[in-house]
Amino acid sequence: MAHPTPHGLHRLAPRTGTGFLLERGQRLRVVDPLGEQVSDLVAFARDDPREWLSSGRSIDYANTIYLTAGHLLYSNRSRPMFAIESDDVGWHDFLLTPCSRDTFRILYGHTDPHRGCFGNLCAGLAPLGIPPDAIPTTFNIFMNVTIGATGELIIGPPRSKPGDAIVLRAEMDLIVGLTACSAELSNNGSFKPIDYEVLRAAAPAPPLRFGEGVTSG
Amino acid sequence: MAHPTPHGLHRLAPRTGTGFLLERGQRLRVVDPLGEQVSDLVAFARDDPREWLSSGRSIDYANTIYLTAGHLLYSNRSRPMFAIESDDVGWHDFLLTPCSRDTFRILYGHTDPHRGCFGNLCAGLAPLGIPPDAIPTTFNIFMNVTIGATGELIIGPPRSKPGDAIVLRAEMDLIVGLTACSAELSNNGSFKPIDYEVLRAAAPAPPLRFGEGVTSG
Repeated sequence: MAHPTPHGLHRLAPRTGTGFLLERGQRLRVVDPLGEQVSDLVAFARDDPREWLSSGRSIDYANTIYLTAGHLLYSNRSRPMFAIESDDVGWHDFLLTPCSRDTFRILYGHTDPHRGCFGNLCAGLAPLGIPPDAIPTTFNIFMNVTIGATGELIIGPPRSKPGDAIVLRAEMDLIVGLTACSAELSNNGSFKPIDYEVLRAAAPAPPLRFGEGVTSG
Repeated sequence: MAHPTPHGLHRLAPRTGTGFLLERGQRLRVVDPLGEQVSDLVAFARDDPREWLSSGRSIDYANTIYLTAGHLLYSNRSRPMFAIESDDVGWHDFLLTPCSRDTFRILYGHTDPHRGCFGNLCAGLAPLGIPPDAIPTTFNIFMNVTIGATGELIIGPPRSKPGDAIVLRAEMDLIVGLTACSAELSNNGSFKPIDYEVLRAAAPAPPLRFGEGVTSG
């Protein structure tokens, strides 16, 4: 079976990405094994991939740019896609699109740019039926963006220490893309791996109401 | 001809919206005639509407959440869609999605919610071939969002005074959606109109390079 849900701990090599499926109630645990490494996350509804993870809806309903444990990540149809169950870091970015050939060209001046998280997401999601143009602003796990007094973005080293993790519970069946970020400036000047695992849902599937615990299988 | 480019000054009644076409080089002037009124703007490439206005790309390349005169608004394909030529206010939001039935239900607790800017954009853009799911985070002209110390969003009265305007030059042929915003909190408690006009491009069409002036036709 192509792209099954990946049980067990998996490692994304530096500057790579993947795509996989999640079922409602399953939890995705994303780990920064070495510290100071960003991971871009995106998701689409399996029932209808025209429903996608929406930074704008999520920020609006949570009324904060820093989404963390207790917050929901919403789709463009205002339905919860993920509930953040736990979060060792509490500082992630939801403003910026994934780094791409164009990012490296425009911002870094590279003449032969890396395909970046965007290219890695395209490659990981294509077998699951998601075209490049459908990829929206990603949830940039562990990315340390602060807003200066006049609105400027200040990209700092990620606040994640080795082993820090975030756990997101799928609130619907999902197609997921995930990367180990490829942009120097976002990762304090180096490229490191990202670990992830999918924790099985307890049966029966949990209700949609946020805040109820799910026992790992 | 359905939905021609609307020359002359037009008025959007409170809590309404529209869709229209812009040609590369034409300039869209959006005016707040009474002050403290938000207008949501979105755009798609006419050649291929899978190319859409991207908040994430625009914020990333400008490195600020406050885009104003001198900035480009980019598509998801990292191509300039608009150049902001002039701006009387200098304070617009590009973080939040348009208000919608779900916004009023989730944030305001309304039981019979207005369709909001999202519904108005859907209605205005449907005849131009844009489905609701394609509508991304909008450029929320005149919307006054500041970010608090812990990341919270503070929605203040728009900083626009009566007659204040922003002028955006189309950098490609566009399908455009525009509203007079329907959300009380965004407009200091009242609903007011928005005026707009399309200024013809000088012939020949201007080059893509940003910063060169265009004479109004």
